[in-house]
Amino acid sequence: MPAKSDLKDLIRRVRRGDHAAAARALSLVVDEDESAASLARDFFKSAGSAQKVGVCGPPGAGKSTLTGRLIGLYRARKIPVGVLAVDPSSSLSGGAFLGDRLRIMAHATDPGVFIRSLASRGMVGGLTHAIFGAVHVLEALGCAKIIVETVGTGQDEVEIASVADTVLYVTTPALGDEIQAMKAGAMEIGDVFVVNKADLAGRDKAVADLRGALGLGRAAGQAPRAWEPPVVAVSALSGEGVEALGRELDAHWAHLERSGERRERLKRQHRAELEFWIQRRVLKTALGRVDEKALKDLLSGKTDPASLGAKLLRKH
Amino acid sequence: MPAKSDLKDLIRRVRRGDHAAAARALSLVVDEDESAASLARDFFKSAGSAQKVGVCGPPGAGKSTLTGRLIGLYRARKIPVGVLAVDPSSSLSGGAFLGDRLRIMAHATDPGVFIRSLASRGMVGGLTHAIFGAVHVLEALGCAKIIVETVGTGQDEVEIASVADTVLYVTTPALGDEIQAMKAGAMEIGDVFVVNKADLAGRDKAVADLRGALGLGRAAGQAPRAWEPPVVAVSALSGEGVEALGRELDAHWAHLERSGERRERLKRQHRAELEFWIQRRVLKTALGRVDEKALKDLLSGKTDPASLGAKLLRKH
Repeated sequence: MPAKSDLKDLIRRVRRGDHAAAARALSLVVDEDESAASLARDFFKSAGSAQKVGVCGPPGAGKSTLTGRLIGLYRARKIPVGVLAVDPSSSLSGGAFLGDRLRIMAHATDPGVFIRSLASRGMVGGLTHAIFGAVHVLEALGCAKIIVETVGTGQDEVEIASVADTVLYVTTPALGDEIQAMKAGAMEIGDVFVVNKADLAGRDKAVADLRGALGLGRAAGQAPRAWEPPVVAVSALSGEGVEALGRELDAHWAHLERSGERRERLKRQHRAELEFWIQRRVLKTALGRVDEKALKDLLSGKTDPASLGAKLLRKH
Repeated sequence: MPAKSDLKDLIRRVRRGDHAAAARALSLVVDEDESAASLARDFFKSAGSAQKVGVCGPPGAGKSTLTGRLIGLYRARKIPVGVLAVDPSSSLSGGAFLGDRLRIMAHATDPGVFIRSLASRGMVGGLTHAIFGAVHVLEALGCAKIIVETVGTGQDEVEIASVADTVLYVTTPALGDEIQAMKAGAMEIGDVFVVNKADLAGRDKAVADLRGALGLGRAAGQAPRAWEPPVVAVSALSGEGVEALGRELDAHWAHLERSGERRERLKRQHRAELEFWIQRRVLKTALGRVDEKALKDLLSGKTDPASLGAKLLRKH
């Protein structure tokens, strides 16, 4: 555990834009080192300063390639960008499984881009908890745009909605019906939709289908929504459509500000962060008390999870 | 909330094999009705009486069709079967999205089969918590085999390992590399592997690839494992290979018993059930105390999630 004065220095360096310091701070926060609490507390002061863009969609939709394009777009405008890439780690071994994120890594040497991949850590809520902490470090570092790229599972989509200001949902014309079924949840959380690999046949149909599905989600007679999620056809590979996508992301950010929705989302994010914090803390302490005897009592039927859980919590 | 005498009657009826009573009990347990605690307590006495087979794998691998085949296999042997199908619900609306589970539903009128779909409920850990309770109801009902079919996201695979005795991982020769990447975690949790749609070209290669990948998972010089996960080629559509799969599932169950691993897995399951119970209970009570003022203090930076979380827990 670093000394207190070192931590103060670390915080100062992060706030001055020092990438090495940010990498160190991020490790401490994500690994929940003892010192993380005071760091997290300080970095939380910067909460809400960046537009957090959550990139989700099924595996194979081209999320990484698109993320690489978005970095390029923001960098052309000299905007400092942070990227958090969630890795589909094996939760049992703890080892990270790195996907093909070459197009993101091409920006790794740009001093205006800070990239970090986060490995899932085998505990429910663990990853999301880490994302909140990591986002605040990047905000403190001065990133004005933070892209959070998920793995592409349904669970992700749920979690990204509690972290991001703007949820970007990526799909392709080629993805089959089975995977499309996973979109049910995305329909509700997506703020901007991308049909990627739009050079493929079926692009117009895919865009029209998606627009149709989004329209159908609204009950008849319901008032028009303040924000109609746009559908943008993009070829992340060639870069076609990426400028238009950037405009929609900006438009959504402006809409959030104008409508007061930005504050509402921030509130929801803070609530979720609090929820994950409590969850992890309690599991750590209460489950620390589950010993071999308790497990044997469960096995023999002497007690049950509800009774034992209540007992452990009373001791809290 | 039902009267106490009604609950006793309900428990009696479930234990006598009454499906209608089981359906009612399951609703109470899953919805966490006030009465659920005493019900869950009673049903937990049956914990460990059935072989719980978790069916996982990517979307489109044919998990539902295979589940239908397994039901048929067990029913031909007059074994009472319970099926819990996890639905990829929209967590925000709470509505369930039913996939094509026709082959499972074909068994819905068989009095020896109890089928229930569980909708994800928007809270982390919520679904797994519900699965534990539901499993115990099915065990009390007398099901000797319980099949838990997941949606096919990475998160599922992690969670299924904490619920199932035997994890059945289903894939197909046709699924692309992107989706294969999601398998990294499955490699470690799968007890039996199925290459489905094995009438397709590439079946032998897929089986060999999978066998190779499973072998590679073992470090050189390591002792041979007590259980070598078999890879079975199956056509769930035609039924080819299903008998052989059934034999492997039986062999795994026998192995668990013989090796003492069954008890170890049951312990792990109980621990996970306890964990989810505690998690949900604490979130309910601690987060019940998060009011508008607390959220405003977070927004204004007067406090932060760690400080506020600690305060809320002290009040617990």
